[in-house]
Amino acid sequence: MKIKLAESYGFCFGVKRAIKIAEESPNSTTIGPLIHNNEEINRLKNNFNVDNINDFKEITNIKKAIIRTHGITKENLEELKKKNIDICDATCPFVSKPQKICEDMSKQGYQVIIFGDIKHPEVKGVMSYAQGDAKVVLNEKDLEKIKLHNKVAIISQTTRKFSDYNKIINYVIPKCKEARIFNTICNATFENQKAAKKLSLECDVMIIIGGKNSSNTKQLFEISRANCSDSHLIENENELEKEWFENKKKCGISAGASTPDWIIEKIMNKIKEF
Amino acid sequence: MKIKLAESYGFCFGVKRAIKIAEESPNSTTIGPLIHNNEEINRLKNNFNVDNINDFKEITNIKKAIIRTHGITKENLEELKKKNIDICDATCPFVSKPQKICEDMSKQGYQVIIFGDIKHPEVKGVMSYAQGDAKVVLNEKDLEKIKLHNKVAIISQTTRKFSDYNKIINYVIPKCKEARIFNTICNATFENQKAAKKLSLECDVMIIIGGKNSSNTKQLFEISRANCSDSHLIENENELEKEWFENKKKCGISAGASTPDWIIEKIMNKIKEF
Repeated sequence: MKIKLAESYGFCFGVKRAIKIAEESPNSTTIGPLIHNNEEINRLKNNFNVDNINDFKEITNIKKAIIRTHGITKENLEELKKKNIDICDATCPFVSKPQKICEDMSKQGYQVIIFGDIKHPEVKGVMSYAQGDAKVVLNEKDLEKIKLHNKVAIISQTTRKFSDYNKIINYVIPKCKEARIFNTICNATFENQKAAKKLSLECDVMIIIGGKNSSNTKQLFEISRANCSDSHLIENENELEKEWFENKKKCGISAGASTPDWIIEKIMNKIKEF
Repeated sequence: MKIKLAESYGFCFGVKRAIKIAEESPNSTTIGPLIHNNEEINRLKNNFNVDNINDFKEITNIKKAIIRTHGITKENLEELKKKNIDICDATCPFVSKPQKICEDMSKQGYQVIIFGDIKHPEVKGVMSYAQGDAKVVLNEKDLEKIKLHNKVAIISQTTRKFSDYNKIINYVIPKCKEARIFNTICNATFENQKAAKKLSLECDVMIIIGGKNSSNTKQLFEISRANCSDSHLIENENELEKEWFENKKKCGISAGASTPDWIIEKIMNKIKEF
């Protein structure tokens, strides 16, 4: 059986940057997991004493806070400043941008529509920058409930698929006088998706590596499964099952934007052993 | 045979307004035909001595100029002012708006894309308000020749079909960082189109009335012909042919935005005679 890596996979610019910031800020605490990868979080804890709190209320106990790639809400940021907590801002620049767009557009009187998951921390952060209400939608059904204004600005969560974003855009445009469409989907995610699609078309088994709560990893998995029914989403090498590879000719491998190379290598080595 | 008028047809707000301005400005001259309807132009000439020049160079001979619904270029407007010619501005407000958008957007650094026919006077007028180049496109093929910027503003000629505009929009959006989409398609045209489509689905012969050089009339004709192969585009009752209506059950009638009611009535009366 051949093993082939996708042409683009794994860590993106924002994650590499966040990990560097964390490594350079020992004895600090991230608010929520820095990235969606438990193995990497354990490494940062063991090697750099980078701790984690999951509830913002726990900030009273910390002195140095790392803001993770997804960003935090405007209110939480102000709270940190008020409490004189040292701030290491690892918000991905591709996430800071939609935050700023959301703020600017709502100041300019545009109704802000955010395409994404309202429960996702990135989206919570972005929408907090709107003056008044920003509307968060996942599909056309959500849009039907919204009374659209004449002037609308649309932003996407960075890790969404463009084809889905396009449906939102095409619903809104004919219904308003001016639509400002911001392409805030991250290229890295897009490149990983394109490569996963290409690879899944030529393989009979696909392994997608990444956190099971990572939005971009789940999307890679979906794209892969659409072309290759024997697709598996795993976090580490212990989840591999020998029988997945029986009678297979070509195994494709891709990994979410929060997956470090050392995990990918471990998994590839184990597959080679089978 | 039943005869049925479309639910929406004929004169739009802008044309009604232009004719009123012309009637209130006797002994004046329009630069290019006021509207795309020869019969109405003759009436204004006979009853109000409203003349017409087709070449802008002839303005040296006139004292009072009527700017027609399609508008004129920024340069021509400045020329009229310089020559102290009285200006009666009958530019349709739905055309003045894209002119202003074009000017504002190019001032703000957006690349302006105009969806429309570069030879149409409305489009010539709108594009003249851009600082630098505005690009005029009719289809995706035209777009392929353009190097799109990061920030793009898109405007449509008022009389275009939204479904065609949508193709332009969908080509541009994934290729830039911000797309500002202005829905400058005139509702009146849209309402006439919607009604013509509905009517053509239930008729076995369709008569579309309007100028043969009128963009919106030609589009009504195309929409009608797609559903009813026996569709005919005529300017006046003399073009009607008796055989069109032989063995027909239902005749639908629609008219372009420049067609006055008195022409429509004449035509309906003649069809009834058959």
